[in-house]
Amino acid sequence: MSESIAPFHGVVPPIVTPFNEDFSIDTDSLRAQVERMIKAGIHGLFALGSSAEVAFLTRENRQIVLDTIIDQNAGRLPVAAGVIDMTTPRCLEHVADARERGVDALVATAPFYVRTHANEIEEHFRQLHAAAPDLKLFAYNLPVSVNVVLEIPMLIRLAQEGVLAGIKDSGGKDDYTRAVVAARKTAQLENFVVLTGSEMTVDYAYLGGCDGVVPGLGNVDPYAYVQLHETCRAKNWEQAVEIQERINKLMAVAFVGDGSRMGGSAAGLGGFKSALHHLGIFASPRMAPTHMPLNDDEHARVAAIVDEFSHGV
Amino acid sequence: MSESIAPFHGVVPPIVTPFNEDFSIDTDSLRAQVERMIKAGIHGLFALGSSAEVAFLTRENRQIVLDTIIDQNAGRLPVAAGVIDMTTPRCLEHVADARERGVDALVATAPFYVRTHANEIEEHFRQLHAAAPDLKLFAYNLPVSVNVVLEIPMLIRLAQEGVLAGIKDSGGKDDYTRAVVAARKTAQLENFVVLTGSEMTVDYAYLGGCDGVVPGLGNVDPYAYVQLHETCRAKNWEQAVEIQERINKLMAVAFVGDGSRMGGSAAGLGGFKSALHHLGIFASPRMAPTHMPLNDDEHARVAAIVDEFSHGV
Amino acid sequence: MSESIAPFHGVVPPIVTPFNEDFSIDTDSLRAQVERMIKAGIHGLFALGSSAEVAFLTRENRQIVLDTIIDQNAGRLPVAAGVIDMTTPRCLEHVADARERGVDALVATAPFYVRTHANEIEEHFRQLHAAAPDLKLFAYNLPVSVNVVLEIPMLIRLAQEGVLAGIKDSGGKDDYTRAVVAARKTAQLENFVVLTGSEMTVDYAYLGGCDGVVPGLGNVDPYAYVQLHETCRAKNWEQAVEIQERINKLMAVAFVGDGSRMGGSAAGLGGFKSALHHLGIFASPRMAPTHMPLNDDEHARVAAIVDEFSHGV
Amino acid sequence: MSESIAPFHGVVPPIVTPFNEDFSIDTDSLRAQVERMIKAGIHGLFALGSSAEVAFLTRENRQIVLDTIIDQNAGRLPVAAGVIDMTTPRCLEHVADARERGVDALVATAPFYVRTHANEIEEHFRQLHAAAPDLKLFAYNLPVSVNVVLEIPMLIRLAQEGVLAGIKDSGGKDDYTRAVVAARKTAQLENFVVLTGSEMTVDYAYLGGCDGVVPGLGNVDPYAYVQLHETCRAKNWEQAVEIQERINKLMAVAFVGDGSRMGGSAAGLGGFKSALHHLGIFASPRMAPTHMPLNDDEHARVAAIVDEFSHGV
Repeated sequence: MSESIAPFHGVVPPIVTPFNEDFSIDTDSLRAQVERMIKAGIHGLFALGSSAEVAFLTRENRQIVLDTIIDQNAGRLPVAAGVIDMTTPRCLEHVADARERGVDALVATAPFYVRTHANEIEEHFRQLHAAAPDLKLFAYNLPVSVNVVLEIPMLIRLAQEGVLAGIKDSGGKDDYTRAVVAARKTAQLENFVVLTGSEMTVDYAYLGGCDGVVPGLGNVDPYAYVQLHETCRAKNWEQAVEIQERINKLMAVAFVGDGSRMGGSAAGLGGFKSALHHLGIFASPRMAPTHMPLNDDEHARVAAIVDEFSHGV
Repeated sequence: MSESIAPFHGVVPPIVTPFNEDFSIDTDSLRAQVERMIKAGIHGLFALGSSAEVAFLTRENRQIVLDTIIDQNAGRLPVAAGVIDMTTPRCLEHVADARERGVDALVATAPFYVRTHANEIEEHFRQLHAAAPDLKLFAYNLPVSVNVVLEIPMLIRLAQEGVLAGIKDSGGKDDYTRAVVAARKTAQLENFVVLTGSEMTVDYAYLGGCDGVVPGLGNVDPYAYVQLHETCRAKNWEQAVEIQERINKLMAVAFVGDGSRMGGSAAGLGGFKSALHHLGIFASPRMAPTHMPLNDDEHARVAAIVDEFSHGV
Repeated sequence: MSESIAPFHGVVPPIVTPFNEDFSIDTDSLRAQVERMIKAGIHGLFALGSSAEVAFLTRENRQIVLDTIIDQNAGRLPVAAGVIDMTTPRCLEHVADARERGVDALVATAPFYVRTHANEIEEHFRQLHAAAPDLKLFAYNLPVSVNVVLEIPMLIRLAQEGVLAGIKDSGGKDDYTRAVVAARKTAQLENFVVLTGSEMTVDYAYLGGCDGVVPGLGNVDPYAYVQLHETCRAKNWEQAVEIQERINKLMAVAFVGDGSRMGGSAAGLGGFKSALHHLGIFASPRMAPTHMPLNDDEHARVAAIVDEFSHGV
Repeated sequence: MSESIAPFHGVVPPIVTPFNEDFSIDTDSLRAQVERMIKAGIHGLFALGSSAEVAFLTRENRQIVLDTIIDQNAGRLPVAAGVIDMTTPRCLEHVADARERGVDALVATAPFYVRTHANEIEEHFRQLHAAAPDLKLFAYNLPVSVNVVLEIPMLIRLAQEGVLAGIKDSGGKDDYTRAVVAARKTAQLENFVVLTGSEMTVDYAYLGGCDGVVPGLGNVDPYAYVQLHETCRAKNWEQAVEIQERINKLMAVAFVGDGSRMGGSAAGLGGFKSALHHLGIFASPRMAPTHMPLNDDEHARVAAIVDEFSHGV
């Protein structure tokens, strides 16, 4: 799509949520992180995504997070908000909350917990859009959490109807992402935005025609992703590979946490938060309960990786 | 366990939620159903379970459902409330809501949406119990929704600590349920309650030592399940099989909905609600959005099954 | 079904395969085991099932196993042979081999490795039957190995066509097994044999109308399963439960092998073979490569369980 | 790795197997296809892969296929043979068969059907290599068929031991493939060959450092893949994307078969065979039983796609 008109393109990191000791939102750290990200040159802010531990945030805490990000952003960048919940009626509450706060876009997964059907998923997106027709609605492809892959013909139908503005694809399969790009081309839906959530193959995604990336790791090193974005836009593909490969070494922070002691979410987000604490952005690496924390040895290993492969604060 | 001391035993149906045209809770129909169930001789009420479309209910609607059930029950039967949500902090809100309303027990699944770990699940139950130590806490084994089977040694540990009062097992595997029964015996935890959610093998479950059943289909025909319970308690196993087999023919209502058009939740709960509407208990068979509705032909088939195999109103 | 006409009913253990040091078939141990099983009063022999490590046996070794079992049996009991392979053309070779040797029945799973369809599975059974129309063909429901559950309407169609004589259900869900029993009743297919592979809920299966059981653990203690069969046939259900519960304690031999070091097949079959070696029936507990072996400590634990809970040699 | 020394690099299509009416191997068509492929400039031949319907080929038919390919090739290109079977002892037969015939390399998946463990998979590759230490052994990552993803540290260990010469990765996740490339770099294993099986993202794979591709679709249009290979080697990435995008439109032949009537294997391979028949290379589009055939309408749609997007004969 044209760079000038895409409201969401480029590097749109899902902002990680810092907590105080009592698990209230550490808004100071959150503001510091937003500020750092904007100064690094990112192109949009994605609030309340999976990386924000949104699944662990009450409705009230979600509002605090969103208020803080929007206030700190002060209109500088477009803001998207995740409206992640089990089903349509519950998502609609988050839609209302986000709309009230003045976001530019919403990001919603398929329903989960329930055994759903493609027809029900399609109607789900329609109802979310109907509740906020003035906002861009992004479908969030996240089979690891919701056990279903969004069907591409459905995406195209909903784009044609004006329901969907784009997709954030965290399905982990670059051929799927590419097939979405091809389908939008065939359907002449140039405005349908395709963002990849695969932080380790962003160069591929750009080469294949994606508009941007939503990288959790961008919380740790926004500079690297912005540099990667610019290098891809300049079509210096081999240099892009070099940047990506360095990023991928930094990605090791997400795999330091011991899988025999904690789940993949705790290890991944724990690694990001440990890095942000080491960099001095977050006052604490604390995760939401009941995410298991990294131990001292693991924090030290994260710090070493950050020192070797990131651009620092 | 001893019949006299088990707070939850016998037939404890998960009450289905009726909706008005605007998807507010149809409290009149809900009261009628609670009254009918109690008069049929059930032994406990399970509010806000999966069959209640709890995944589709906002926090406010959950409170209305719970208030209505508790008020109509008027202390006649013990009441358990589902506190179903993605993670611990969100479940804790439902724990507080339910505790305020005076329920006797809580029912919680493992966290979902997030990639979790057994350690994190165990801590999840501990934190829920800590927030309501005066209430019985039941673990809800539901791999079809949360993608994980609760580990039996963990259940036993938590029972020994006083965290868990029992399990509602909807894993669909009778050998697992039986292994829980065996483990509680070995651990001399006679008070740990084992309830099966497998409505088509209740006779087996009782033969194997379970304390009761949480049958979604019990909404349609509570009489049959109460009769089955009593027959099993009287150890008339072959008669129990006959009752179970008739029940299993009635269970066909849950499979009338066309799987090429709707998901398993819509077909199953749609069948129950269609039956309750046909019986005159519910003013409407309406399901929560975006559950796809049964069509007229399907409603007629449900009605025919109900007329042939249920005990009626 | 009527006891007198069912060619396969009662206790039909899948005979485990002993190996010499060079991984050739230890026919002496195999003969000893067949003899022991027959003397214990079992009702049929199932050769080349999953418990036989059939997946590890070359075509030649399968023939040696089958020749040995048939020769030792000497016509005393009906013999079924597994024809387990990836697809129809390969299974047909095993069908020819088994038919030549004079078995009474064949047991086949759905195709695996390939991404198949219900239509293709149905045609698979038809072609296997066409190649040996004089033999009973049993469908082997084994989703853990072939990733698909056999659809019950298909089973019924194939039974009506005379393709299938019965099912060996190792799907692990007693409600499925029961639904097959109900479907054959509705279709008036009394001769369609239903055998459960769930060794820990045999009492349930008999109560629900199954004809028999194919218990891997029956290799270790055939006496217990024969006793359980007879007790169930006599409708002494509570005594049956007691027998089953003792069996289930013996089943612990299948879970001694450390899951952090070996797969479920190695632990399960390794436990059975360790028990048979301890009992002096097998010259060695050796498993097919590359099954990881139990270690000395694990062998000792298996022996202790066998000594406490089995009927011995 | 260095282009000059890699024995397998570039375009190495898995040759599809044509059948006569009696399902014997149509060696004439097979020879014609091999000849066509070599003339198109491919870099190696992969016999007996999944695309060859190897799962449907008896040991004898596998030998005929391999003999035919090797004879027609007459030493012009390196030849790899799949040794696909359930477990080590059975694979070892195929290893012996292939070695006798003088192949250059072997390709093996993890064991399947059995519930296996990483340790058992690792030992599996060791034993296969020990039986043919003079041949290159490739690990075949194919979770869709064998339900397990090969662990990268294991690949590296086995490469360091000299067991594995490379990987054919059909896992469908480009970030995994890339992680293998990164791991070989870190381990300074430049000779460890990484081939992608993802036919729709070959440009990505080359950009990320892969050595080649094993494209089933290369049977239909070898010219396009050779052209893509050369363009990538020349680092003309944007032109590579254009070639890839045209290829991806041709890939539609694999999705013409109706999924409500046939499985994914039948649709995919049926599409390839229909295309080869339309091009006049194969005498028939016949598939192995019990793959469901495409119907006339589907054949016509395949032909239209081939005419529009392929380089023809």
